[in-house]
Amino acid sequence: MRVTKLTGGLVGAVLATGVVALSVNTAKAESSPPPITKEEMKKAARIYFDRCAGCHGMLRKGATGPALTPDRTRKLGTEALEAFIYNGTLGGMPDWGKQGILSKDEINLLARYLQHEPPPPPELSMQQMKASWKVYVPVEDRPTRPQHSLNWKNFFGVILRDVGKVAIVDGDTKKLVNIVDTGFAVHILRSSASGRYMYAIGRDGKATVIDLWLSKPDKVAEVKVCYDARSIDTSKYHGYEDKYAVVGCYWPPSFVVLDGMTLEPKKIVSTSAYYYDTQEFVREARVASIVSSHYDPIWVLNIKEAGQVWLVDYSKVDKGTVSIDMIDSERYLHDGGWDLSKRYFLVAANMRNKIVVIDTKDKELEAIVKVGTKPHPGRGANIDHPKYGPIWCTGHIGEKRIACIGTDPEGHPQYAWKVVKWIKLPGEGGGNLFIKTHPKSKYLIADRPLNPDPELKRSIFVYDKYTFELVKTLKVPAKYKNIRAVHEEFSEDGSEFWISVWGKKNQPTAILVYDAKTLKLKKEITGDWVRTPTGKFNVYNTMKDIY
Amino acid sequence: MRVTKLTGGLVGAVLATGVVALSVNTAKAESSPPPITKEEMKKAARIYFDRCAGCHGMLRKGATGPALTPDRTRKLGTEALEAFIYNGTLGGMPDWGKQGILSKDEINLLARYLQHEPPPPPELSMQQMKASWKVYVPVEDRPTRPQHSLNWKNFFGVILRDVGKVAIVDGDTKKLVNIVDTGFAVHILRSSASGRYMYAIGRDGKATVIDLWLSKPDKVAEVKVCYDARSIDTSKYHGYEDKYAVVGCYWPPSFVVLDGMTLEPKKIVSTSAYYYDTQEFVREARVASIVSSHYDPIWVLNIKEAGQVWLVDYSKVDKGTVSIDMIDSERYLHDGGWDLSKRYFLVAANMRNKIVVIDTKDKELEAIVKVGTKPHPGRGANIDHPKYGPIWCTGHIGEKRIACIGTDPEGHPQYAWKVVKWIKLPGEGGGNLFIKTHPKSKYLIADRPLNPDPELKRSIFVYDKYTFELVKTLKVPAKYKNIRAVHEEFSEDGSEFWISVWGKKNQPTAILVYDAKTLKLKKEITGDWVRTPTGKFNVYNTMKDIY
Repeated sequence: MRVTKLTGGLVGAVLATGVVALSVNTAKAESSPPPITKEEMKKAARIYFDRCAGCHGMLRKGATGPALTPDRTRKLGTEALEAFIYNGTLGGMPDWGKQGILSKDEINLLARYLQHEPPPPPELSMQQMKASWKVYVPVEDRPTRPQHSLNWKNFFGVILRDVGKVAIVDGDTKKLVNIVDTGFAVHILRSSASGRYMYAIGRDGKATVIDLWLSKPDKVAEVKVCYDARSIDTSKYHGYEDKYAVVGCYWPPSFVVLDGMTLEPKKIVSTSAYYYDTQEFVREARVASIVSSHYDPIWVLNIKEAGQVWLVDYSKVDKGTVSIDMIDSERYLHDGGWDLSKRYFLVAANMRNKIVVIDTKDKELEAIVKVGTKPHPGRGANIDHPKYGPIWCTGHIGEKRIACIGTDPEGHPQYAWKVVKWIKLPGEGGGNLFIKTHPKSKYLIADRPLNPDPELKRSIFVYDKYTFELVKTLKVPAKYKNIRAVHEEFSEDGSEFWISVWGKKNQPTAILVYDAKTLKLKKEITGDWVRTPTGKFNVYNTMKDIY
Repeated sequence: MRVTKLTGGLVGAVLATGVVALSVNTAKAESSPPPITKEEMKKAARIYFDRCAGCHGMLRKGATGPALTPDRTRKLGTEALEAFIYNGTLGGMPDWGKQGILSKDEINLLARYLQHEPPPPPELSMQQMKASWKVYVPVEDRPTRPQHSLNWKNFFGVILRDVGKVAIVDGDTKKLVNIVDTGFAVHILRSSASGRYMYAIGRDGKATVIDLWLSKPDKVAEVKVCYDARSIDTSKYHGYEDKYAVVGCYWPPSFVVLDGMTLEPKKIVSTSAYYYDTQEFVREARVASIVSSHYDPIWVLNIKEAGQVWLVDYSKVDKGTVSIDMIDSERYLHDGGWDLSKRYFLVAANMRNKIVVIDTKDKELEAIVKVGTKPHPGRGANIDHPKYGPIWCTGHIGEKRIACIGTDPEGHPQYAWKVVKWIKLPGEGGGNLFIKTHPKSKYLIADRPLNPDPELKRSIFVYDKYTFELVKTLKVPAKYKNIRAVHEEFSEDGSEFWISVWGKKNQPTAILVYDAKTLKLKKEITGDWVRTPTGKFNVYNTMKDIY
């Protein structure tokens, strides 16, 4: 393979917009795709699924990344495709070759594969789901009260991303409680309404439920309901506590309602839809994030490609009825969370640089707010501000500002659904993934793991949440090499916050515990088990949606 | 082509069940499909669409007819397939060859075509719909009161099926008002809440709206929103009169909300879903019948393959929100109508020999009632019976009984959702398509157009709607040859009912008007324009859902 240096206009377009303008380059137009064997097709499909499908889609129609359909890829040709895969783009495409994650042979294979029609991805029926369903501890064998004396509501679930496990760590003692085998590359954890059950969803679509009341907290059931998934949540409305879970699938495009305690799959609902704007059919309309209402029996699902927020009423699932309000908003919905009142849900339309606001009481679109480049709120950070009233903040992958939006149209109508404050992170570039605060903390905390600067990506930035001044920059101790600081989580009482030291799979790192008043590093949680820690979820804060 | 005589077990299975047991006959297994040229593929796809897709589906997964996927058709082979297409089956498959509708060459072509993978059917985007949209008379140019002195609420819209037209006939004078060009093979007509607008939906997916207030009532707008469609209705709830129309598509599987007065397409919603029972994905989940509630801003849509009834709330469409209650019921939903109270909707799951009852007030499945073979209610017939209270009746294609079901769980709980009366039609076999009554008539009337007996299929059977005794058999006058009597419709005041004389396209027939008291033929509506009349819709009865 020769890694072609991209020339002229095409590179310019890539750098400027982050979106590869595939259609403009017709110089290399080829009428038929390069040869590929059946065996190679299979291998390439696997690599594509692992590395590319998340952004470009299983059917390659594009989402966070551009479309890679043969009409476009054949015009680029093998060499240009190889160059993109090897070098990445400033717009967010990873440098798979440079990073050493894909070999030159694999890159050549992928470049050829992309010029062929994508093979039809498989379906997943209820029967197949049930075949994967395992209950390790039946409900009747589970304890009726906690079988240990630990303060389980202050447990932290820690995703050990690349080893396919979740660690349960006691927030009071910082001791490891147990390590649980889960799906691959767990994306998030959620707690049930009671807090007793913790749910993990793997990138591979495997859902796992962990019972924190067992003498040794461990998984009690699991089931694979998608080939590719990003989200899970539980029923939090009064009368439905711990009753249901819901998984949002990337492929097949669907959501699946599960029994909350056994994970028995109960109901599959297709999310194939029409783009809200052009109203063209999009088979691959994927479920991005999900949150659960505390005031209604509904889940809020974000249908990424369609640009619709679906409010799914689960109160009649047992009667065979699912009720959905499908609300048009903006394309490529990603992650989001509740405002302080938990009436409004705010979600990033990340390729449109906008935050969509949904009023879950009146069940309609409340506002669309322009923010910066590629907002990535996680669930966002809520502040009750003396001047602006309740506000909700998001960071950005694509730039260094944090945007805070007024969320109180009744008490503070002049600030509602406007960016009331832009907070600038120091240094150049964006790369923020998560910001976090806590009602009892006076700080707003931000990471920068996707910033290319090795110093910035190991730093955590602490702001006064009322003055928005930078108070301190925390750095991961230098003994941890080639790492990124990622994801902040407060303890139940807000007295401390935890940061993950995200390294490579082959070397243990740490979870750092900071005092939330003094901002001093008070504890390094270490051990051979601390491999690729990323997201951490405090049970109490997660069950109550405190962020 | 040799028309093979089917032998033994396979024929038995066909005759007994009406469903071809394709999978049992492996004698003729072929590993690869017979040759077919590109040109032939195209021609065969067209014939398949016109003649086969309605029952077997565009993707050939089966619905009213069995699946015709290559794994099954290749086992049968060309000769057996030809035989089926030529001879039909007693289960409902038409004898396309015997009838002379398909030539031997066309049948051979189809038989070969069916052994190949079905070509992917095309999508239809909002942009394409808008390109077909025509407003002949803009809303501002339409009159504010009727421009003629005719009693337009007693107009009848008469479908002239095979000529792609709808005739407007004055019910008072029986005179032709106008003939309107519409889509091909119009399936039904609906009236808006005010009655002013009449809507037609062609089998080809073209919707037409006719303004009855023009000095010469005529179409004022049209739009093609599907490639294949069966249903249309309008918004009837207080405050939404004449505001919206909705079209249910067979392909693409979707429903489309239109402006009621201009037919501007506003919103497309996919109906691809999961089968309610096996929970496997069904891309081709088609919209069968639609009715419109008078007491809520909802349409009731029947998602045929999935076996779900969708209650679609249209009150927020202008805000970009569509809300749907998706209610599991039974597979292969077809046609249905309101009970007398208009709270309950009753629909045939025709391949399951069941009637599904939906409570549209509590928005849930109320009951599933076992009836006879292949129920075909049309919208059914409502009777307020002295003993049983309000009941709703359906005929059957597959047998000669009419089933009447109690529909009053509060006033007559002992009869609710039970067949309280089986009425036997005379002679052998089923073939009933429509039954009808009117609150001011004491008769229940039934046709038999699909019965093979030439005498039965030209007969109309009149029953006392309280005693269920056969009162009279009406026969279409003998001068009309090779015809079928089909579809009864009462006038606004119930004093007469109309019957279509359904012949071939190349010869005019008649619409027969009977006195609803004396049962005497009082008028034959004739003329060169009376070609293939089928469904007839009285404006008042249709706008008020009186049947």
